Amino acid sequence: MNQTNCMVAQSGGPTAAINASLAGVISGVQKSGKYDICYGAINGILGILNENYLNLSEKIRDSQTLSRLKVTPAMYLGSCRHKLPNYKDDDSAYVFIFNQFARLNIKAFFYIGGNDSMDTVLKLSEYAAKIKSDIRIIGIPKTIDNDLLMIDHTPGFGSAAKYIASTMLEIAHDTFIYAVKSVTIVEIMGRDAGWLTAASALARNEYNTAPHLIYLPEVPFDKEQFLNDIREKLKALNNVIVAVSEGIRDEKGEYITASHAAFDQFGHQQLSGAGKALEFLVKENIGVKVRSVEVNVLQRCAAHMASATDLDEAFALGEKAVSLSEEGITAAMVTLNRTSNDPYTVSYSHAPIKDIANEAKSIPRDWINPRGNDILPPLYDYLKPLVQGEVPVEYNNGVPVYMPVEHLKPSL
Amino acid sequence: MNQTNCMVAQSGGPTAAINASLAGVISGVQKSGKYDICYGAINGILGILNENYLNLSEKIRDSQTLSRLKVTPAMYLGSCRHKLPNYKDDDSAYVFIFNQFARLNIKAFFYIGGNDSMDTVLKLSEYAAKIKSDIRIIGIPKTIDNDLLMIDHTPGFGSAAKYIASTMLEIAHDTFIYAVKSVTIVEIMGRDAGWLTAASALARNEYNTAPHLIYLPEVPFDKEQFLNDIREKLKALNNVIVAVSEGIRDEKGEYITASHAAFDQFGHQQLSGAGKALEFLVKENIGVKVRSVEVNVLQRCAAHMASATDLDEAFALGEKAVSLSEEGITAAMVTLNRTSNDPYTVSYSHAPIKDIANEAKSIPRDWINPRGNDILPPLYDYLKPLVQGEVPVEYNNGVPVYMPVEHLKPSL
Repeated sequence: MNQTNCMVAQSGGPTAAINASLAGVISGVQKSGKYDICYGAINGILGILNENYLNLSEKIRDSQTLSRLKVTPAMYLGSCRHKLPNYKDDDSAYVFIFNQFARLNIKAFFYIGGNDSMDTVLKLSEYAAKIKSDIRIIGIPKTIDNDLLMIDHTPGFGSAAKYIASTMLEIAHDTFIYAVKSVTIVEIMGRDAGWLTAASALARNEYNTAPHLIYLPEVPFDKEQFLNDIREKLKALNNVIVAVSEGIRDEKGEYITASHAAFDQFGHQQLSGAGKALEFLVKENIGVKVRSVEVNVLQRCAAHMASATDLDEAFALGEKAVSLSEEGITAAMVTLNRTSNDPYTVSYSHAPIKDIANEAKSIPRDWINPRGNDILPPLYDYLKPLVQGEVPVEYNNGVPVYMPVEHLKPSL
Repeated sequence: MNQTNCMVAQSGGPTAAINASLAGVISGVQKSGKYDICYGAINGILGILNENYLNLSEKIRDSQTLSRLKVTPAMYLGSCRHKLPNYKDDDSAYVFIFNQFARLNIKAFFYIGGNDSMDTVLKLSEYAAKIKSDIRIIGIPKTIDNDLLMIDHTPGFGSAAKYIASTMLEIAHDTFIYAVKSVTIVEIMGRDAGWLTAASALARNEYNTAPHLIYLPEVPFDKEQFLNDIREKLKALNNVIVAVSEGIRDEKGEYITASHAAFDQFGHQQLSGAGKALEFLVKENIGVKVRSVEVNVLQRCAAHMASATDLDEAFALGEKAVSLSEEGITAAMVTLNRTSNDPYTVSYSHAPIKDIANEAKSIPRDWINPRGNDILPPLYDYLKPLVQGEVPVEYNNGVPVYMPVEHLKPSL
């Protein structure tokens, strides 16, 4: 008798929670009465095109290995940034992929990723419908940007937000030590939405009011207003700390950047230097010590500082995807709804993938102050539950222990 | 009857361990039969010149507060970068400082800091000798650079090394996910010595050989050799990760930097951009994806990732300084000697401050491979014990809880 198998892959940029969703899928399959083997495709959809698979059911059997996978940063299965063509223009990749599914008895395909990956889920779903395939195609969201529609917040965001808030507090301690006027600019990831930059405000407590200014892509950036904001804060404070999204733009929609811009395969503008640009602005116009800190890739891969809430939700979404596929759901993304904020509770559901792909969710303007340089209480209330809880990471010889990823490199 | 008091201050750049030494001093005073009050001068030696003090004996009484201080990053008492003039040229500051000591019945002054702070300890000691003061002047070392003489390693280094090694492993997970050739340059602090950059090698394990290349200030940097090293590694690996000290220099002693250089008050060249410079080199000469990551201030203030070995030693050195002062020792720095490497044990002692100030300790050349692009086993053996052990940090609302520093800012 034929096996009934499923396949999972990961795509897009890393988060600290994307392997928790993978662990959830594997756990869901272990509990499932339906699937025999869970395959993992290496490097996203490219793994299918290259016939490069791991047998996850064999590789990850015990609960200790599953737990370690849950806390391992970035993609255990590797990633890709591969955009499938429209099948109406060229269906050769689709034919190959669905032949692979048939050969391996794949009845469900789970794709863990962000906006671009949901575009792939949409295209595979449409092709499946066209050829009347019964293979279930389900997307599992992740992105530190928190900019997916139809979901209260995205897995990976809470851990990145916890890292940003904690790092902002540590930078504040680092900055307050000198009794000379200074400005510190902290550049935080976020191309189109300022969610992660806003999370830096969670560093505020009874003695720390940093970040003192917050600039988000949702509000057009005005250089003169920024300089006036800085001058105003320097009257009251020695050390002014600014949180700024990499994606801030001026009134004309031009990125505020110190360097040239290029475009990636998905047409996203590649940014660098909003922090540097503001550093130069302050240096040229205000006579105080100034530096910029680019938090860089650490904000998305610092699994040693993951949010327990985030990893638990990411895991639950992985399990949910498996159970949805068993119920016959397809062309969908698993979703997460906040059913109560205090106490914080969520429920898991799903939404049609066509309502999600290629759209981005911004911060509501009325969650940002009128001047556009700080956040308001409703945004605090939204953010706070997402960073709660710490995840114990095992250490060996003083360094965290994560899942080995030797399969990603033939020769390390 | 007159009180017998003591004073402590902190100076130089932040570390995750400098408050552990402060906690050690306070603990030493609590245990001491000699001192009534321990004063803290705010912003280093400037705190004395500005008569800005905290009564630490009053402020930090219970063991819970002391424990929290021990894990708080950067300087609880604030810092300064103030160089005292030679007293032979101008003794006015010295007269003022020793008048303050007399007014507050200070019989011992502890200065926690790096190389430049030990210069201050030396100058105060020489002045005290000249005026035949019986005030004990003792330096307590700290620096993430690990470049002080007469001590096996410096407090603050082990925590920074643990952060660098863990971060390097997380960057490796982040980097390995794409099946396209890439080069990642990680720039690590270290102006004159490569100790911290070398510690990135502790990220290596059974599946991770990153960093694949390590460039240190101890070896003259050759651009052609660097490019050949990269080309060679790219033959065997998809994703090459390079660790580089900010302070690498060419044969002529010129810094490898993408930006202009300035000089600070102590005559140190202010650096930025060794990582960027190497990124541009690879971009111009080798046709692969390349990015640079500047770890920046996080490597010195990430107290959430401190080394337990480091904090315990920093605390012990603080206590040792107090007991030395009771024994009548002055013009000295407390030191730490490695008495055994396996099992790792240390003993605490002291050395004359004149043998320490204004000198820097480099990595021995024979702990670096002949080609100058990696470290050798003796350096591993030296580094390994220093990053051992994790320090539990309390979290509140998802963010670490540190000691409030509202005294550093009159108006936050």
